[in-house]
Amino acid sequence: MTTRWKITLEYDGRPFVGWQRQDNGLSVQGCVEEAIRRFAQEEVTVHCAGRTDAGVHALAMVASFDLEKDAPADTVMNAVNFHLKPHPVAVLAAEAMDPDFHARFSCLGRGYLYRIVNRRAPLALEAGRAWHVMAPVLDADAMHAAAQRLVGRHDFSSFRASLCQAKSPEKTVDELTVTRVGEEVRVVARARSFLHHQVRNMVGTLKLVGEGKWTADDVTRALEARDRSAAGPTAPSDGLYFTGAVY
Amino acid sequence: MTTRWKITLEYDGRPFVGWQRQDNGLSVQGCVEEAIRRFAQEEVTVHCAGRTDAGVHALAMVASFDLEKDAPADTVMNAVNFHLKPHPVAVLAAEAMDPDFHARFSCLGRGYLYRIVNRRAPLALEAGRAWHVMAPVLDADAMHAAAQRLVGRHDFSSFRASLCQAKSPEKTVDELTVTRVGEEVRVVARARSFLHHQVRNMVGTLKLVGEGKWTADDVTRALEARDRSAAGPTAPSDGLYFTGAVY
Repeated sequence: MTTRWKITLEYDGRPFVGWQRQDNGLSVQGCVEEAIRRFAQEEVTVHCAGRTDAGVHALAMVASFDLEKDAPADTVMNAVNFHLKPHPVAVLAAEAMDPDFHARFSCLGRGYLYRIVNRRAPLALEAGRAWHVMAPVLDADAMHAAAQRLVGRHDFSSFRASLCQAKSPEKTVDELTVTRVGEEVRVVARARSFLHHQVRNMVGTLKLVGEGKWTADDVTRALEARDRSAAGPTAPSDGLYFTGAVY
Repeated sequence: MTTRWKITLEYDGRPFVGWQRQDNGLSVQGCVEEAIRRFAQEEVTVHCAGRTDAGVHALAMVASFDLEKDAPADTVMNAVNFHLKPHPVAVLAAEAMDPDFHARFSCLGRGYLYRIVNRRAPLALEAGRAWHVMAPVLDADAMHAAAQRLVGRHDFSSFRASLCQAKSPEKTVDELTVTRVGEEVRVVARARSFLHHQVRNMVGTLKLVGEGKWTADDVTRALEARDRSAAGPTAPSDGLYFTGAVY
């Protein structure tokens, strides 16, 4: 009798080629599948709510897989954590689900946090974990006001990576909030789903607003152009965190 | 004409044997002195407000040194940062001071933060940057109440490392605050100065209170015993951050 498992994962994206298993390096998926294999002696495929790119972190990624082995949730969590060492991936929670639960296809909402550290000095403690933007002081209020132009249902072709495999460029952004906390500027993004690189492309564009180079109207024009070259550059992976999935 | 410089440093303590230059490994002091030497072609000795142990971090360590080379503060900061790469140390600020300023001897107050992540799952993002305390849920309110027994002027022999070089075991703790922020328990400590390992020994003792093994009265008894073996174990270096120096 097979059990469908839901697990919640935290990971530091720095050592990984990304979520997805690849031939050319260490992936989060590969590490998790290998840890499950060592625990249960079963070959499994682990599906996640949002496949993150190389260097992108997760505070609470949700993933699902099937296991023949019968074990309590605590055992699954502790054993997989044991076998995940020394990789910077941790199972925060494990739960047995109905067999129709699927981390990706059942997901009704995804959340991301993007962290910008806005200061002159290089990052010692947060290197690889935030985007270092030196100067000038970013105007977070102007970024937030401009971000509201991207909230709602739009054709996000201007913010879509060329490799994006989504059928449609139309997405509904439910929240795009920019706040300053000391020297840090934080962008919170929520949507049912995002296009590939959409959050990083939105952040790279909003940074132009924060620097005073672009206005909110420029952001609207970039959106309406439906052309990737009309929007700002892609913000680096360092600052991006998958923060949660809603079911 | 010599200039006395004050610099403020952020560092990740993980790769270092500690602040102090040693023969057996990389030290923060050694890295900073070497970066200054490369910039100014001068051999300098850098003094800091509080010499941190191996693995202890700094959000704002203050240090001072003398330089013959004449340069604006911005140049000192940027050039030293350039030469500090790739070490996880950053100069946040540089300022020319009166010649009687000394980062250690002029310091009127030191602040530390100790971070405990209190959860079952291992630490993926915060490994080496917080103390992982698994179970049970620590009672931060009880820890805070017990911490107040340590505030004020006391003989802290029970919380003093055997290697401590201070002349007297008497210190005045101005603040010892314990708060819970989600799964994190934070201890803020302020004093004119601390004994060696004093903050970590206080945290290791307060953890016993958080677990319900000790009461506030047990903390008072440990303090009054003036005997290191009467207090709790030393909390690991991972969670300790030097947060600032007052002049």
